[in-house]
Amino acid sequence: MKIGFIGLGIMGQPMALNILNSGHSVWVYARRPAMMKPLTDAGATACSSSTEVAANTDIIFICVSDTQDVEKVILGEEGILKSIKKDSVVVDMSTISPSATRALAKTLSDNECHMLDAPVSGGEQGAIDGALSIMVGGEEEIFNRVLPLFNAMGKNIVHIGDNGAGQVTKACNQVLIGQTIAAIGEAYILASASGVDPVKVRQALLGGFAGSRALESHGQRMLDRNFKPGFKSSLHHKDMRIVMEAAHELGIALPGASQVTQYLNAIVGQGKGENDSISILELQELLSGITVKKDN
Amino acid sequence: MKIGFIGLGIMGQPMALNILNSGHSVWVYARRPAMMKPLTDAGATACSSSTEVAANTDIIFICVSDTQDVEKVILGEEGILKSIKKDSVVVDMSTISPSATRALAKTLSDNECHMLDAPVSGGEQGAIDGALSIMVGGEEEIFNRVLPLFNAMGKNIVHIGDNGAGQVTKACNQVLIGQTIAAIGEAYILASASGVDPVKVRQALLGGFAGSRALESHGQRMLDRNFKPGFKSSLHHKDMRIVMEAAHELGIALPGASQVTQYLNAIVGQGKGENDSISILELQELLSGITVKKDN
Repeated sequence: MKIGFIGLGIMGQPMALNILNSGHSVWVYARRPAMMKPLTDAGATACSSSTEVAANTDIIFICVSDTQDVEKVILGEEGILKSIKKDSVVVDMSTISPSATRALAKTLSDNECHMLDAPVSGGEQGAIDGALSIMVGGEEEIFNRVLPLFNAMGKNIVHIGDNGAGQVTKACNQVLIGQTIAAIGEAYILASASGVDPVKVRQALLGGFAGSRALESHGQRMLDRNFKPGFKSSLHHKDMRIVMEAAHELGIALPGASQVTQYLNAIVGQGKGENDSISILELQELLSGITVKKDN
Repeated sequence: MKIGFIGLGIMGQPMALNILNSGHSVWVYARRPAMMKPLTDAGATACSSSTEVAANTDIIFICVSDTQDVEKVILGEEGILKSIKKDSVVVDMSTISPSATRALAKTLSDNECHMLDAPVSGGEQGAIDGALSIMVGGEEEIFNRVLPLFNAMGKNIVHIGDNGAGQVTKACNQVLIGQTIAAIGEAYILASASGVDPVKVRQALLGGFAGSRALESHGQRMLDRNFKPGFKSSLHHKDMRIVMEAAHELGIALPGASQVTQYLNAIVGQGKGENDSISILELQELLSGITVKKDN
């Protein structure tokens, strides 16, 4: 099977390498040619556009930043649609709008092709280790066709439902993780303001119903004041915009997610978008005039 | 060692039984005499007041509902302080105000006695199984004196710091668990409104950074619409009042915890305080006109 991979950033580069290393021929394209070098060094073929990728391959992965980027890769002047072959599959692993995803899937279907939305979680390390969680929307038959390639990139791979269902699941993930980070921050603020060691509080809480992967991992980095990403605030900010747009379109109220979105707006507004999204803690500290310290 | 146990409700009764079964002589008191029966049947001695318990014992556990109840048990007309012996220890396992706890500890210290605050989490099943999480505030020497008795009731036992530190930790626990439940509810609302199966969403999220004990346990019960406690909304409501009072006293902002408190106010206001606090989901459903269904 001939595989295309478009978008070779922090996530896309190791994901494409894992596909290449699983024994497939891979055609790649990235806006910045330098990003293709590690792939071509490993045996991939560099292309000069998304159109060229699609002309040569049967399954085309996309891993870019935002809705408009995916739309440009598929529908743009040098896009996939210009050359895509019948029965090919476009697999979008970016995190973008569920409703825009459904529209793109319809366009591809009208052109006798298929689409899967397959956003991931697990971060750069998960991408390098081939251990991503992958949440997939689209037809089951097409999911099964792509599954061996997902297995090269991830571990927890779930087919959720129709086109867009993967993006909805990723949105749910961001809603939950953002609020959990903010809630851990509030617990640390309350402990610190009360003169109680947040390290001990975390230790006690980990053993009970308040225990979570976020308290284990993010909760420790918050205590270490290690704001290096991990997961950039600017990306969480973008993801929460997608969530808020979906809530607006659907006419539903998500007050907790909205609050987290405001924190992320403020982080990006203060020029700290490159910091991990656990830096929500810094805003909570500013708000209450409290610094969370390990040796309280 | 002679042990006293005051307050034999859903939690106190199995906790006192576990102490009795670990081989200690136990004197008990409960406002409703019928609650003492399982204990006296098992060999405990019934008392007619907290004063009588304290007159006969060296370590006196309290497990009642709220701040004023604990104050009455210690300071009231038939309270512990009327008869307590020098160097005795009062161990309050209720969930009450941290600042009121510090005041009570001071009063006991002025009377040459000791106090530990030792609120628990883990619910009725944890109490029956002797598997509670116990968060302890008070002097280390006194903690070590009581530790063998804590071991009869719990598994994850952490000495957090000075008097009040246990109550602060419990408050942090309620802040975190309440917001996690509300965040899971929002994820389910978003999925359901988008026509995506929340069962599949939960399955996908459990494998990643959004995974938590709450998503495992409460998240499943929310999908099952099993609102039987577990942990009553009326108690979570009381605990969040303690959190909000602490935030007021300390002059700190806890916007996420405040939002959860409003949900719990509304649940109790609608006469549903006996339902588990996962019934926050029902309010979120009302707000958005969405019903979360398993077979979406």
